Amino acid sequence: MHGPIDRLRQAAERRAAAGLTRVLRPRSPDFDGLLDLASNDYLGLCRDPRLTEAAVAATREWGTGATGSRLVTGSTRLHHELEEALAAFSHSPRSLVFSSGYLANLAAVATLGRGGLVVSDAGNHASIVDACRLARARVVVTPHGDVGAVEKALAGREEENAVVVTDAVFSVDGDLAPLGALSEVAVRNGALLVVDEAHALGVVGESGRGAVHNAGLAGNAHIVRTVTLSKSLGSQGGAVLGAPEVIDTLVDTGRSFIFDTGLAPASAGAALAALHILEEEPDLPKRAREIALALASTARELGFETTEPAAAVVPVVLGDPHRALAAAATCADHGVKVGCFRPPSVPDGRSCLRLTARANLGSEDLAVTGRALAAVAGTKVTA
Amino acid sequence: MHGPIDRLRQAAERRAAAGLTRVLRPRSPDFDGLLDLASNDYLGLCRDPRLTEAAVAATREWGTGATGSRLVTGSTRLHHELEEALAAFSHSPRSLVFSSGYLANLAAVATLGRGGLVVSDAGNHASIVDACRLARARVVVTPHGDVGAVEKALAGREEENAVVVTDAVFSVDGDLAPLGALSEVAVRNGALLVVDEAHALGVVGESGRGAVHNAGLAGNAHIVRTVTLSKSLGSQGGAVLGAPEVIDTLVDTGRSFIFDTGLAPASAGAALAALHILEEEPDLPKRAREIALALASTARELGFETTEPAAAVVPVVLGDPHRALAAAATCADHGVKVGCFRPPSVPDGRSCLRLTARANLGSEDLAVTGRALAAVAGTKVTA
Ligand SMILES: Cc1ncc(COP(=O)(O)O)c(C=O)c1O
Ligand SMILES: Cc1ncc(COP(=O)(O)O)c(C=O)c1O
Repeated sequence: MHGPIDRLRQAAERRAAAGLTRVLRPRSPDFDGLLDLASNDYLGLCRDPRLTEAAVAATREWGTGATGSRLVTGSTRLHHELEEALAAFSHSPRSLVFSSGYLANLAAVATLGRGGLVVSDAGNHASIVDACRLARARVVVTPHGDVGAVEKALAGREEENAVVVTDAVFSVDGDLAPLGALSEVAVRNGALLVVDEAHALGVVGESGRGAVHNAGLAGNAHIVRTVTLSKSLGSQGGAVLGAPEVIDTLVDTGRSFIFDTGLAPASAGAALAALHILEEEPDLPKRAREIALALASTARELGFETTEPAAAVVPVVLGDPHRALAAAATCADHGVKVGCFRPPSVPDGRSCLRLTARANLGSEDLAVTGRALAAVAGTKVTA
Repeated sequence: MHGPIDRLRQAAERRAAAGLTRVLRPRSPDFDGLLDLASNDYLGLCRDPRLTEAAVAATREWGTGATGSRLVTGSTRLHHELEEALAAFSHSPRSLVFSSGYLANLAAVATLGRGGLVVSDAGNHASIVDACRLARARVVVTPHGDVGAVEKALAGREEENAVVVTDAVFSVDGDLAPLGALSEVAVRNGALLVVDEAHALGVVGESGRGAVHNAGLAGNAHIVRTVTLSKSLGSQGGAVLGAPEVIDTLVDTGRSFIFDTGLAPASAGAALAALHILEEEPDLPKRAREIALALASTARELGFETTEPAAAVVPVVLGDPHRALAAAATCADHGVKVGCFRPPSVPDGRSCLRLTARANLGSEDLAVTGRALAAVAGTKVTA
């Protein structure tokens, strides 16, 4: 018998042979001098002085940590203020802040789905997949965007308790879930609908209030939203938005809420400042969406497979993981930092570049990106 | 059929009847004027100017968020510096930083245990229990502290891959795991041993290097440690410490690493400053342990069931959840904020107060605590 470290080494060799080794490359503050088309800082707020000074003020007032779990000492008035602001911004009765979007999803789906049926879209984020596993529920994974399959799973169930869960905007493909139809199906079948607005908050709809709000569904008690504070809000953390009964359930029984330290004050302060900016500059989200459309049309004109972006995420599908890596390197050579997604982040054969729009990109930035993608297209043709 | 919100309301009524409703009470910066014996800020660093100014500087240099997952744009040189410092401090070859201790545990146990056997102590933290569920492994829960049961589970397995997992210091009872014996059993049976140092880092052993280091086991490749940055280090976040093969495995395949936004710069900067303080003030951890021993002997003299604390956590067992709530209220009336733990945080019938020592408590603080506990004891006698 080999020791456990030998087994890990052998598995690493197998990953290397399949082109699936990943390397951390710590960056500089200015993204190593590259144009950032890879981050999720969709509104370009992460280094905005209004956010940094809010984080500084929160740190000086509250210290560097929440000091405990939310139910012991980790709830400060700052957390409360952020929860009120998130609820008001998204037109939700209540909200509950977590230390990450990942843990918010675990709590929402695992707690509300417990022991029942969870119907989950095949394209959902890893944190939702993990949440399904934690729910001790029967899990039905439905084909991407297939509302009929969702209805069938719900209608045929024996469990009383049922939850449907979907990304609002899918994290790599950037497409929008059919929220109106899913909501109807959920209501008709006595189920909750959990919508992960991670890539929609701050980007989709009027003032960036998200996809649920944009679909006119914000007032529906059976819809539960999860958000992250780490993308358009430029900070860290997550939240669940929903009816008082939903929030109370999570406070009483949500494991990843109860047993986790509260969000650091700096991050709470920064997210709060970002929400204020969104109220003051309602055109910021639209600007991010327009840049995304421009990026997608550039990619399409160069012959790449992409989508019509609903938010700020623009995929450029390349297929093979080695080819995706080479394309990302070509972009970097041309001064552009893009995301490179390989299995398990995407299905086999769907390795891609992931370009993200930012509200503060200008026409020169788009021109640089066009040249980088043209170079990738050239590589492809000669390969 | 009732709607889903009705079902949540009914469940809430059942929890209320069982005394298990929880209410968030946002506090002020000074803990509402109470003496804080409830937080996990064991070294009293959370408001230390060296930490706050490090968080401020990190925010100004790096912005308010990491901007993406660690493998895309979320690894900064600051994260790298923190990882080097954590590894050096704990005498570990490598380390990997997460946005929370919760997600560090999920990655370590679910990734390393995948598809094999996971042997988990019955007293382990909720994040470890969730990690076991995510591992898609056969899980054997062994009685608290029972090394023989661990050996039996390992020796009798058919799976090649096996992981033993334990808290170093248990989060409510405050007792120490038998790390030396567990390490031997793991080696003998070709298993990894994952040790959660959440309540040991910064408190146990020389300079607070933790329980694994204190047991002389820091150099062992088969031992993987997880830590949080949110307790003695006064910040937020978590990390896994281990052999290069372990860290590489998590970077390549750890779901809660790959699919989560990197830790906010402010939190990374604060944790780094706390590590520097520990190197400069090696007696701080001892001070926290001495205060814990003093608190435990006060409780014992008043007739309460408690433990001999190995770190900074001191339980005062009361049994019934209503009684625990009343005791916490009595302490607050006497100016002391204590933790109150009820199911599911503790087993049924084991509701308790949880007192935590802080390195910066003085003799007057201990006197106030003595008076508060005496009042609880009085209540108990007349009940
Ligand atoms: C769709 C989606 N949900 C949830 C998360 C997790 O959020 P966080 O990074 O804040 O933990 C992410 C990405 O990180 C995501 O893309
Ligand atoms: C033993 C133990 N492990 C892990 C955690 C999770 O760490 P964090 O709060 O940093 O997510 C906690 C408490 O919060 C804990 O007590």
